[in-house]
Amino acid sequence: MKAPRPGEVVLPFDPGARHDASVAFLGRIRTPWGPDDCPKSITRAREQGAEAWIELDPAYQPLLTGLAPGRWIMLLYWMDRARRDIGVQRPGHVDGPRGAFAIRTPARPNPVSMACVQITSLSDHRIGIDAADCFDNTPVIDIKPWQPTIDAPPGRIVD
Amino acid sequence: MKAPRPGEVVLPFDPGARHDASVAFLGRIRTPWGPDDCPKSITRAREQGAEAWIELDPAYQPLLTGLAPGRWIMLLYWMDRARRDIGVQRPGHVDGPRGAFAIRTPARPNPVSMACVQITSLSDHRIGIDAADCFDNTPVIDIKPWQPTIDAPPGRIVD
Repeated sequence: MKAPRPGEVVLPFDPGARHDASVAFLGRIRTPWGPDDCPKSITRAREQGAEAWIELDPAYQPLLTGLAPGRWIMLLYWMDRARRDIGVQRPGHVDGPRGAFAIRTPARPNPVSMACVQITSLSDHRIGIDAADCFDNTPVIDIKPWQPTIDAPPGRIVD
Repeated sequence: MKAPRPGEVVLPFDPGARHDASVAFLGRIRTPWGPDDCPKSITRAREQGAEAWIELDPAYQPLLTGLAPGRWIMLLYWMDRARRDIGVQRPGHVDGPRGAFAIRTPARPNPVSMACVQITSLSDHRIGIDAADCFDNTPVIDIKPWQPTIDAPPGRIVD
């Protein structure tokens, strides 16, 4: 493991070694991206316009009942290559240190990332999405319908 | 386990028995709620106005650096009493069956729930929040700053 950068704080334990519950991987996100060229945010990924889709484990196909192209979903994915023991980081785009809970870094105790994306196609267990900001084959752990009353502060959404 | 209701589809396996990764519980959400009186949504919880807070494991306190009262966060919590093997459900408020990915039920392969809530106070490892729609002592698995460019469809947020 790399040494922390100045101002970074590393936890004295690895949260990944604490087993309080098990996560099941439900499928994989397919993208053209690897460590060298992955967009840093869903906005940048959307600007790049590359094809992205979810290959769902066929066992979970019935769980898609009621979803359709055009729907916006919250996609939760497991950043399986991220460190889990970095508590305070110094991201290049902000001044000063930030705790993992104050930024959207994948390096967090439970490396869950999420983004609001649109379903563009749906065919059996292949779900086309408008963008994805993760490496090819990143595991999917949940899909939820986006709901403004849950996923945004009250009164901040345009109908 | 209860038999499924008509129209419900139960998976032929329990996703909770599939161990692809470990989740660490980072703290607990404190609420007045139990199985008999828990609000069904964050909106209803907000209407009830009961006190709610996060008791963070002190080891993770540095990760709060940069957060402050007034900030909106995405709170991710682990619904540890929910069934994980129900694929298609018939919620009372909609007509027809819905897959777990099409509704915000806690009964899903990975029982992660989330809501956008506001930090009302911050004192050491106690984080006051404006509302919570879960049982007392529900485990916290992540805290993220709410960001409209990530957590909502483009163009849907009022500044």
